Amino acid sequence: MNAGEDYKALYDDYLRKVEAQLEQIVKYKKPESLYSPFHYLINGGGKRIRPVLTMICAGAVGGNPDDALDCGVAIELLHNFTLVHDDIMDRSPLRRNRQTVHEKWNEATAILTGDVMVGFAYSLLPTTSQHPRSDEIYKAFTRGLIEVCEGQAYDMDFNEKKDVSLDDYLNMIDKKTAKLLETAALIGGNIGKGSENDLNSLQTYANCLGIAFQVQDDLLDLTAEQAELGKKIGQDLFEGKKTFLIIKALEKAKNENDKKLLNDFLNNNGLKDESELPKMIDLFTRLNVFDDAISFADTYFEKAKNSIAILKANQYIQMLHWLIDNLNKRRK
Amino acid sequence: MNAGEDYKALYDDYLRKVEAQLEQIVKYKKPESLYSPFHYLINGGGKRIRPVLTMICAGAVGGNPDDALDCGVAIELLHNFTLVHDDIMDRSPLRRNRQTVHEKWNEATAILTGDVMVGFAYSLLPTTSQHPRSDEIYKAFTRGLIEVCEGQAYDMDFNEKKDVSLDDYLNMIDKKTAKLLETAALIGGNIGKGSENDLNSLQTYANCLGIAFQVQDDLLDLTAEQAELGKKIGQDLFEGKKTFLIIKALEKAKNENDKKLLNDFLNNNGLKDESELPKMIDLFTRLNVFDDAISFADTYFEKAKNSIAILKANQYIQMLHWLIDNLNKRRK
Repeated sequence: MNAGEDYKALYDDYLRKVEAQLEQIVKYKKPESLYSPFHYLINGGGKRIRPVLTMICAGAVGGNPDDALDCGVAIELLHNFTLVHDDIMDRSPLRRNRQTVHEKWNEATAILTGDVMVGFAYSLLPTTSQHPRSDEIYKAFTRGLIEVCEGQAYDMDFNEKKDVSLDDYLNMIDKKTAKLLETAALIGGNIGKGSENDLNSLQTYANCLGIAFQVQDDLLDLTAEQAELGKKIGQDLFEGKKTFLIIKALEKAKNENDKKLLNDFLNNNGLKDESELPKMIDLFTRLNVFDDAISFADTYFEKAKNSIAILKANQYIQMLHWLIDNLNKRRK
Repeated sequence: MNAGEDYKALYDDYLRKVEAQLEQIVKYKKPESLYSPFHYLINGGGKRIRPVLTMICAGAVGGNPDDALDCGVAIELLHNFTLVHDDIMDRSPLRRNRQTVHEKWNEATAILTGDVMVGFAYSLLPTTSQHPRSDEIYKAFTRGLIEVCEGQAYDMDFNEKKDVSLDDYLNMIDKKTAKLLETAALIGGNIGKGSENDLNSLQTYANCLGIAFQVQDDLLDLTAEQAELGKKIGQDLFEGKKTFLIIKALEKAKNENDKKLLNDFLNNNGLKDESELPKMIDLFTRLNVFDDAISFADTYFEKAKNSIAILKANQYIQMLHWLIDNLNKRRK
C-alpha cells in the first residue's frame, strides 16, 4: 500500500466519525418541522473537508485528531448553515444532486433550519474545563461566522456591480470560502495546542487552499460532469455570478463580439438561455481563461504547501500535502 | 420623588447605556450592504427589556449591573436576529412603526443581517479571563438561541394546525418569548455571581414575566392604539396566528354563528378582510376572552413576583417588582 492509500484510508476513517456524529445530532429531537430538514441538510454527504481538516490540523501540531472531532462537526454545521441560507438567497434548486431545503420544504423552514444549526454548532465547542484554549476556539469560530456572512454580502453586492475587479473577487472569496477553512485549521491547531507559529502556518495553508478551491469550483461549474457537480452545468453563469472566469474574460476580451457577449451577460445579470452557454464556453476557451484558472489555483495550492514547510514533519503534515494533491485532481 | 420615579430613572439610565453601545457596534463597518440594515434594525428603539433585565439581575444577586451591559447587548442582538428573521417568515411589513428590513431592502439582505448579528452577539460574551462564569454564560446563550428557534418552529406549525390547545400555546410561547427573557436573567445572575438558588428564582421570574408579556401582547394586538403598537391593529388575526384570545374563544364558543366565525378564521388561515375584524372583536368581548387574558397575565405577573420573594432584598429586587407593575400598565 502506498502513502496515498494510507492517507485516503485515514481520511475515510475521519469522514466516518464525522458522519456518525452528524447522524446523531438531532435524532429524536422535536419539533420535527425543524429537525427533519436539519437532518436532511446535514446528511447529504459530501467531502466534509472542513471537519476532516480540523482533525488533521490537530494532529499536525502534535495533538490527537479525535479530540478535534466535535469542533470539526461544529464547523461543518456552520458551513451547512451558510449553504442553506445562501441557497435561498441565490434561489438554487439543487445542492449535491438533491433538492435544496427551501425547495423541498419552504423558505421559512430553510431560514429557521440554518438559524438553529448555529446554536447546535456553538454547543459543540469545548468549555473551559474541557479545553484550556476554549476562549481562542470560541473567538475563531465567531470570527468565522461573521466573515462568512460578510463574504456572502460582497458576493450579493456583485450582482448589482458591473466592474468587479480581480481584487474585489479575491477579497470576496477570501471571506466567503477561505475563512471557514482557516477557522477549521485554527481551531484544529488550538485543540492540538499548537504554538503561534504553528497556527499561523496552518491558517495560511487553509487560506490558500480555500482560494484555490474556490477558483477551481468556478472552473468546475463548466468543466465537470453534472452528476459529479450535483447541480446544473453552468449554473454560476445562469445566476449571473462574477466568477474567476468571467472576471478574467472581461480583462482579456478585445474584439467587439466577445465584449458584446460579456456585456450582455452583465446587463442581463446572467445568461438568458441555454443557447448562450456554448458561446460563453467558446469565448473562455479562446481567451484561455480556463488555463488561467488552473494556473491561478496551482499557484495557491503551491503556496499552501510552502506555508507548512516550517512545521515539524509528521504524518499529518504529509496528509495536508496529500490533501492538496487530491483536491487538485478534481479538475483533471 | 417616589420609588417608582427612581426606578424609572435607573431604567432610563440603563437604556441609554444599551442604546449607546448598540449605536457603536457596526459603525464604519463594511460592507455597507450588510451593516447599514444591521444598524437600521438595532436602532429602531424599543423598551430594550432584555438587556435592562440582564443588568438588573446582575444587581439583584449583588453584582454590578454595568458588568452585565455587554451580555445584555448580546441578548438584545439575539432578540433582533429573531425579529428580522421572523418578520420574513411572517411576511410582516411593519415593526415598531417602521418598514421591516426585508421590505426596505430585500429578503436576502434580511436573512444575512440576522445571521451576522448572531456572530456579533457571541463576540460580546465574556472570555474565561474576563469572567469566571463564562462557560455558564455561553451555555445559557446557546440554549436560548436553540429554544427560540424551536419556539418559532412550533409557532409556524400552528399555521397548519387547527386544534392548538392552551398547553400547545403555552409550550410555544415558553420557548419563543419566555426563553430569551430567562436567558437574560440567567446570564445577568451569572455575571453577578449569584448562587444556584438565586439563578433559579431569577429564571422563574423571567419565565413568568415572559408568559405574561406574550399573553398581554396578544391582547394588545386588538386593544392598543396603532401608534403605540407600531403595527396594524389586529395584525395577528390577519396573519392567522393562534393567539391566546383565539384559543380561549375556541374553547368557549357555544353558538353556531360564533363557531362559524372561528372556523372561517381557521379554514382561511386568518381574517380575510377588514370587515371581519369588528365581528371578531365583538365575539371576543361577548365570550369575555379579553378578561381571561388579563387575569391569565395577572396570575403570571404575580407568580413572577412570588418567585423572587426568597432573594435577599435590595434595590434591584425592588426594581424587578416595579418592572412588573410597569409592564402590567401597558394594557390599561
